[in-house]
Amino acid sequence: MRLATRANGRPDGELVVVSADGARCASAGGRWPNLLAAIEDWAEAEPELRALDAEGGQPLADSTLRAPLPRSWQWLDGSAFPAHADLMQVAFGTERIEHDKPLMYQGLSDRFLGPLEDVPFRSEADGIDFEGEFAVIVDFVPMGTAAADALRRIRLVVQVNDWSLRTLAVPEMKTGFGWIQAKPACSMAPFAATPDELGDAWRDGRVALDLMVEWNGERFGSANGREMAHGFHELVAHAAATRDLVAGTVIGSGTVANADYARVGSSCISERRAIEIIAEGKPSTGFMRFGDRVRMQARAADGRAILGAIDQQVVRALSPESN
Amino acid sequence: MRLATRANGRPDGELVVVSADGARCASAGGRWPNLLAAIEDWAEAEPELRALDAEGGQPLADSTLRAPLPRSWQWLDGSAFPAHADLMQVAFGTERIEHDKPLMYQGLSDRFLGPLEDVPFRSEADGIDFEGEFAVIVDFVPMGTAAADALRRIRLVVQVNDWSLRTLAVPEMKTGFGWIQAKPACSMAPFAATPDELGDAWRDGRVALDLMVEWNGERFGSANGREMAHGFHELVAHAAATRDLVAGTVIGSGTVANADYARVGSSCISERRAIEIIAEGKPSTGFMRFGDRVRMQARAADGRAILGAIDQQVVRALSPESN
Repeated sequence: MRLATRANGRPDGELVVVSADGARCASAGGRWPNLLAAIEDWAEAEPELRALDAEGGQPLADSTLRAPLPRSWQWLDGSAFPAHADLMQVAFGTERIEHDKPLMYQGLSDRFLGPLEDVPFRSEADGIDFEGEFAVIVDFVPMGTAAADALRRIRLVVQVNDWSLRTLAVPEMKTGFGWIQAKPACSMAPFAATPDELGDAWRDGRVALDLMVEWNGERFGSANGREMAHGFHELVAHAAATRDLVAGTVIGSGTVANADYARVGSSCISERRAIEIIAEGKPSTGFMRFGDRVRMQARAADGRAILGAIDQQVVRALSPESN
Repeated sequence: MRLATRANGRPDGELVVVSADGARCASAGGRWPNLLAAIEDWAEAEPELRALDAEGGQPLADSTLRAPLPRSWQWLDGSAFPAHADLMQVAFGTERIEHDKPLMYQGLSDRFLGPLEDVPFRSEADGIDFEGEFAVIVDFVPMGTAAADALRRIRLVVQVNDWSLRTLAVPEMKTGFGWIQAKPACSMAPFAATPDELGDAWRDGRVALDLMVEWNGERFGSANGREMAHGFHELVAHAAATRDLVAGTVIGSGTVANADYARVGSSCISERRAIEIIAEGKPSTGFMRFGDRVRMQARAADGRAILGAIDQQVVRALSPESN
């Protein structure tokens, strides 16, 4: 089952069930007005949503789609791909992180941008970068849940662009407090899929899909999600070690990266810059400029884009007085 | 005006306006069912709430009170007291943080514990510590808002206990990603006050009240909130540099601490341990044990506890299977 959220003028939008070809949808109706309400009562919601007739439903227009979860109570983003961690250390000029647990930070979750929404930033000098990721949306997870049990609390898989401001990132990282200014709102691709929808591509708590990234229409990377050092279930258990996880918590994989990055490319600009530093001593690729576009789409072996596409333009933010 | 939230079986509780002596209250009624709804439409809500007759209202029982904001979309906690930063460096055995901006991390906001609620932890070995803080609740703050303008977006002042697990804190801090396991849910004192309610104690975006902290009935500290290196308006502007702040965002001061800590004491155990390390080479005070209580109350010069009292017991968490 794939779910999406249509704009309806309300903060959480309208939950719809999406047809197999993505062209039609059925409204989830009054009992499950939005995805957050459904995920809070998933045992009741899931069979009712699966029973809806999306194939015989209304036409689904991409332009009406918001993030499947336009806001949530919690966003915890891991950094589970070793190739990404290795390259970021080069890009940032920082020491190797020695840690015997998954890496994770808490980011802002009051807003996930929609797949086609313009993304406003104040300054190109902040080092505007994308980070292509997979993420899961979990049910309530009690504090102390083990990884094996956490797997059964994963309800939906989504695809995220974790927008990052690299110039601000290193100084914040050095405080040990994590990122505030360096991590503005993320974007989400339009479709949230139940794990079964991914078939063989959902394995060991990992999303084994190629993440196709294009920057201004040119291929940038096609890294596969399978190379996580810790599966999503382990990230969930890590997050739940000392807190109950509220239903609707979104847990991210961190930037999808593969050891064979020379062949598959990257899912963020910083990694390409690190590869340039290794090869040439300095980076030659700059960060994003206003007007630039990034497109991200995860493709299954049969070519299907199960989670849909993010396709966004970076724009200059309005001054605060305009709000 | 002081506001509180009564338990009513719903996630966000029932908003009430509190009488001057704290003994009576008036329900905010259907239009402003909870504080989050009111803060999202504050220009409309504030005059209507101020017009309610709390003095002639219902009796207010402490036992029915939850956190004034039982959950919110965002919690950003600063570390604005230089005396705290200096002592934590000793307690943690870490390097001095060189940063030309306020220190801040993003913590969990899906749940703020009520003032009298038991606080469950899994293990005493995690180093259970309290952190007495002040915090503000802001209206919507557009990205790029300057500190001078941010002052006018501060709608309410609250008092927070930022529960911390010290054994887990240093390894997480060294990753640069900030704290996940070391920072479980915070607690809030029962009354949220508009800044005018604080009178002279609200100055330069700081809460100039003594925070009286008792651990198991013994005085632990009475540090004053005035010694913030950055006022709350500066913390708000820092947080809003690259993101819009959603209405209801809670911004914390970090642990209240004074340069004269030898006389006023501390608002967290780690600071006392640091003072012991400086004086004796090693800490002699342990962290909290199951069954321990902590009480925190901010007193004005005239003795009034405007924000009410946090008075909580630390308990052993249930196993996840019990949930």
